[in-house]
Amino acid sequence: MDLNLNSLRREIDRIDNNILQMLQKRLEVARLVVKFKQEQHLEINVPQREQAILNSLKSRERSMLSADVIEEIYKIIFTESKRLQQESCPLVAFQGAHGAYSEVASRLWNAEITPVPCPEFADVFQGVVGGSYDYGIVPIENTVGGMMSQVNSFLLHSDLFIVGAVEMSVRHSLLIVPGTDYRNLRRVYSHPVALAECQHFIQRMHLEPVAYFDTAGAAKMLAETWKESTAAIASELAARYYNLEVLKEGIGDVSNTRTRFVVLAQKPFDGVGNKCSITFVTENKAGALFRIMELFALREINLTRIDSVPDETGNYVFFLDFTASDQDERVREILQKIQESTVSYRFLGCYNEPVSTEKNVENVEP
Amino acid sequence: MDLNLNSLRREIDRIDNNILQMLQKRLEVARLVVKFKQEQHLEINVPQREQAILNSLKSRERSMLSADVIEEIYKIIFTESKRLQQESCPLVAFQGAHGAYSEVASRLWNAEITPVPCPEFADVFQGVVGGSYDYGIVPIENTVGGMMSQVNSFLLHSDLFIVGAVEMSVRHSLLIVPGTDYRNLRRVYSHPVALAECQHFIQRMHLEPVAYFDTAGAAKMLAETWKESTAAIASELAARYYNLEVLKEGIGDVSNTRTRFVVLAQKPFDGVGNKCSITFVTENKAGALFRIMELFALREINLTRIDSVPDETGNYVFFLDFTASDQDERVREILQKIQESTVSYRFLGCYNEPVSTEKNVENVEP
Repeated sequence: MDLNLNSLRREIDRIDNNILQMLQKRLEVARLVVKFKQEQHLEINVPQREQAILNSLKSRERSMLSADVIEEIYKIIFTESKRLQQESCPLVAFQGAHGAYSEVASRLWNAEITPVPCPEFADVFQGVVGGSYDYGIVPIENTVGGMMSQVNSFLLHSDLFIVGAVEMSVRHSLLIVPGTDYRNLRRVYSHPVALAECQHFIQRMHLEPVAYFDTAGAAKMLAETWKESTAAIASELAARYYNLEVLKEGIGDVSNTRTRFVVLAQKPFDGVGNKCSITFVTENKAGALFRIMELFALREINLTRIDSVPDETGNYVFFLDFTASDQDERVREILQKIQESTVSYRFLGCYNEPVSTEKNVENVEP
Repeated sequence: MDLNLNSLRREIDRIDNNILQMLQKRLEVARLVVKFKQEQHLEINVPQREQAILNSLKSRERSMLSADVIEEIYKIIFTESKRLQQESCPLVAFQGAHGAYSEVASRLWNAEITPVPCPEFADVFQGVVGGSYDYGIVPIENTVGGMMSQVNSFLLHSDLFIVGAVEMSVRHSLLIVPGTDYRNLRRVYSHPVALAECQHFIQRMHLEPVAYFDTAGAAKMLAETWKESTAAIASELAARYYNLEVLKEGIGDVSNTRTRFVVLAQKPFDGVGNKCSITFVTENKAGALFRIMELFALREINLTRIDSVPDETGNYVFFLDFTASDQDERVREILQKIQESTVSYRFLGCYNEPVSTEKNVENVEP
């Protein structure tokens, strides 16, 4: 630690960034406690618990931090937690740290709904099933990486409905600690898929790619530690969360990597949708899938996605999306026939999906 | 992340612990900024800087954390920073994280003086030389590990004075995340020296020792991450800082590892001391050291420490401590003679050192 004004101020900036992240996280977890208690019909406000937390914190060993300051700050935190609980704004869970591309997509889908980060996809699904989150948003198709097998498997085995979808360009940016000289950069941290998608750029910059579990997580780590000579590849939203500098945007090798995200909920969408998703297992015999596709073709309904995943029994599970409403008489006929002719079948949901979201993407990531 | 009440509350405890650490750190660094400005005769209160910090924090991307809450909390932090600056309580720097054995020693030496952690010994010395800290405390002799070469080398090359000393028992404790079942412990993190000092205990518990840069740092890491099946070896003070549970205390193989610490400052101690430290280089010839020791023996002055370090030129640098005051006429005579008969000589200081500090140690670590 250099004891000059500039480096002390940089250290304060780093600490402040961590304080903000921790305060944010605390409000989020307190909100989950409330949701959990609501689900379980438990008493929500337990003043004794607040007092116990405060007493525990004030009893810790400290040097400069006085008990009064702890008390003042925690009173603000407790009050804000209660205010948020009264607002009872809906929550949408996404996998990753704040600033993840899924969070960018969630804002594109509905900017009014509060995004909450989850470590794993399993947490997103379990949290929506259990009622901790009102929605979950997960990537389902990626034009480069192909389909997301883990997410599809969760989708298959949960009884959640798809209630929305958005497609957006994933624009990778190179993020650095503010003031870093780009000539001193040596390493770049990101999710292996993002590193692969920016391979040419990384080579041109002579950077060593370092795999990290998450794009936004790499940005967060960089902001927490201010590692020297290090950059992260993540969204511009991540830069805005962690106060990092965007050295260069749009560094992906393919200029337009599009990813599609679906929004999940316990109950189906209650409006009139323009798109439906279904999943089914056909018998393992020739023409089974063809006959199903024929049903759509004959009624002039557009299929927008078809994916197959082998299941545990050796049969194929199909995911089919098509542009039509489930209120449409033709659709009802088709779904009736599919249900009759397949081994298993589930209607995943009818929902609205914007036809082109390019303009919206630009709004979210200026 | 399990979404049940117990694990959510544990997560809140973990976050609260991190918030406290960060607030503490922020006040400490803000205090260093003030010290730096005082040294450089710069304007201390710059309201524009506070406003700029606040604007930057409020402009960050956030989800649940409102700008108002940030402002309220930071007003408390700014006010407290100013209050601490008015108090202008002296600071003592130590190497390591809060809860380090050096901090335990600093409280034993003078509980009124605020301890501030530094990453490296070099930071402690540079910080005292530069005026950021009023004092520095460093371990200088360890009955097991022998003398601390890095510290001695810094002591030799700085022009700081020794103004105090304390000796204390280093009592290692096994710290765990509260509520951990000891049967699930697999790994233990600590400084390699502490791991070596607790070797038998670690083997008996069938734990895998994992080297960490610092004992208290290992405790801090454990409290921040709540790593599963993991313990740390550190002081009980560290447990109190990071809200860890002391599973077992006094786990060192040798029951009584004593370490001696010296306190450094820019100016010599201004009272009448009972102990002196000197360092000198003799000519590389037989009997040179003997003749110096003879000076003390003839005047019946007790030597309490003699250490030698080879210097760059192949000569030996000697460190000598003896129990007497530099006001003592016999001492003046001896020092005069040593100065005349050695290649180089420096008086490190005359200070008070308690004869036995056992009782005090018990007070600090109950």
